Amino acid sequence: MTTSDAPCAVADRLPVRPDLAAVEPYGAPQLDVPVRLNTNETAEPPPPGFLPAVAERIVSLELNRYPDRPHRALREALAARLGLDAEQVWAANGSNEILLQLLQAYGGPERRVAYVRPGYSMYPELCRTALTPAVEVDLDDDFALTADVVTTIAATDPDLVLVPSPNNPVGTPVGRDAVRQLHARTRALVVVDEAYVEFGDADASVLPLLDELTRLVVVRTFSKAFRLAGLRLGYLAAADWVVQDVQKVRLPYHLDAVKQVTGLVALEQEEAFLGHRQRVADERDRVAAALRQLPGVQVWPSAANFLLLRTGVDDLFARLLERGVLVRDFSRRPRLVGCVRVTIGTADENDAFLTALRDVLA
Amino acid sequence: MTTSDAPCAVADRLPVRPDLAAVEPYGAPQLDVPVRLNTNETAEPPPPGFLPAVAERIVSLELNRYPDRPHRALREALAARLGLDAEQVWAANGSNEILLQLLQAYGGPERRVAYVRPGYSMYPELCRTALTPAVEVDLDDDFALTADVVTTIAATDPDLVLVPSPNNPVGTPVGRDAVRQLHARTRALVVVDEAYVEFGDADASVLPLLDELTRLVVVRTFSKAFRLAGLRLGYLAAADWVVQDVQKVRLPYHLDAVKQVTGLVALEQEEAFLGHRQRVADERDRVAAALRQLPGVQVWPSAANFLLLRTGVDDLFARLLERGVLVRDFSRRPRLVGCVRVTIGTADENDAFLTALRDVLA
Repeated sequence: MTTSDAPCAVADRLPVRPDLAAVEPYGAPQLDVPVRLNTNETAEPPPPGFLPAVAERIVSLELNRYPDRPHRALREALAARLGLDAEQVWAANGSNEILLQLLQAYGGPERRVAYVRPGYSMYPELCRTALTPAVEVDLDDDFALTADVVTTIAATDPDLVLVPSPNNPVGTPVGRDAVRQLHARTRALVVVDEAYVEFGDADASVLPLLDELTRLVVVRTFSKAFRLAGLRLGYLAAADWVVQDVQKVRLPYHLDAVKQVTGLVALEQEEAFLGHRQRVADERDRVAAALRQLPGVQVWPSAANFLLLRTGVDDLFARLLERGVLVRDFSRRPRLVGCVRVTIGTADENDAFLTALRDVLA
Repeated sequence: MTTSDAPCAVADRLPVRPDLAAVEPYGAPQLDVPVRLNTNETAEPPPPGFLPAVAERIVSLELNRYPDRPHRALREALAARLGLDAEQVWAANGSNEILLQLLQAYGGPERRVAYVRPGYSMYPELCRTALTPAVEVDLDDDFALTADVVTTIAATDPDLVLVPSPNNPVGTPVGRDAVRQLHARTRALVVVDEAYVEFGDADASVLPLLDELTRLVVVRTFSKAFRLAGLRLGYLAAADWVVQDVQKVRLPYHLDAVKQVTGLVALEQEEAFLGHRQRVADERDRVAAALRQLPGVQVWPSAANFLLLRTGVDDLFARLLERGVLVRDFSRRPRLVGCVRVTIGTADENDAFLTALRDVLA
């Protein structure tokens, strides 16, 4: 059997696409350490009644049959929650698959994406996989989406604009006026990626703008505030023609029957699911306040379940890891030199992080 | 809100990719009729102990955490079943996602796919979504992959060759020698799509050829003989560098934690799952024999859980549907004029199909 270490004759192997040759598979390290604060999971498990309710529903599934391809029941439940029609809602295996489907439908070599920097690290990966040229546009010095940034984005004449709100990894939400400007000054699909929006104020979402901005797409996920990272379920809300267009590229039966029913049960228990948000916000504010006490530490305001901080310690990621605390390292990324992102965990986990950080800085 | 019927100003909408403009979303009709024999599902549900065992395992999942990204336990279980190393196995959300990942890793505008005709209807769809040029190569008059067909394929100098075995929608398996020839006479990744292979003879699979053919990829699914179409789980077996390359394009955490554990339970119960195959084969042979008694009906030999037949009735699909029997219509496809494909269902369903067909032909 061929192994990767053995030399191969040319005919033994088909080379991967040339632009992928030097690529490392995307993903934060999944390390078995005591305190994992690197992927913005929520520390609290789903409500106690959730998995038993799912188990009860699963036993009556007809799994020898294909799932409902347009997943109507799930879309209707999502639409009811959002005050929309089911024809305006579409779900997939995580918000990453939603973004990929949008790029497959509207991207390609003849199209162009603009996304902001700093921004979600998957944007360049998704554009590469979808063979879509992309332009990175820098947020301002405070990592805000200002009118000047909108002008720069508009000048690239993009087909799609990708904006996380709250920003990942910064934590700051994008204002509605900035989204209105992006929409008014481009002909683009304006994709606002609200993976963390439920951690912010009730009026943080741009969802109400769907009535006025026809090319707006709002992307959401069950992985964060819904505490179901393991389920891989995301969705979009948009005009109905967007939902029709993504069906031209989605794999048939992309959403399995178990996932559809699990998502439905989560929506039925929404109140119990989202009850932890105030606890997360309180912990976030406590950790941020503690960080601001530390000399040489800069911390950005966050409406999400994580904090971005900058220190003068070059190898902070490794030194926290030595102390059993896993954070996300951005310190080699453009504009984020010296930065790490820490997920808000349990009070004990957050204390462990603060203790480790104080130890490193001492 | 914009509706698809209302006229839009140009700026109200971003046009879909031009090559998708006229595309209809792929998928057989999901109609609520008494006898559904159109998507090659198995009629028998999973073994009685299966869903309760899944339910029991699900309640201990930590769903607030992301799933194991490389899904090691599932790959180890699959590898053990196949007599391979886990590094040679990779799973995804259905074999369609496996095929798409292969096209994303090895395809693109500068590469070329060759696939056979007749063949799986998703091949052209997947190539279009992956922006990869494709050449259709006709099987011979009996729909066999002969040396002449291999010559024609080799002449296109493909990067990837897609071959279903048993063929879908024909039902005939591809011989090992034909696969050896395809491998010897091209520099391509030779992708043998064995979605239905478990319904054939024990030696029908080309899996043993992995030892000698370095660019062979075998694709499998849990949707057919494993009776889990609703789960959407497929996998590939190949050299380890193929598994490494697809990880450059897979979405991170593409396989959710519930699906990983459900697949594991299915493998633990493999014997119970596959017990129905002889019943399917017996029914297939009974239906084929009955069809051969009908004047003007041509039926192809099948090693799968379906039969392809050709009649002189122009609108057979619609006339069977009027009688409550849903089959798959291929009658307008090149090379398949006058053909429908019927899934082998329960004895009662098969009888309903035969009765309806005799009625139409009378």
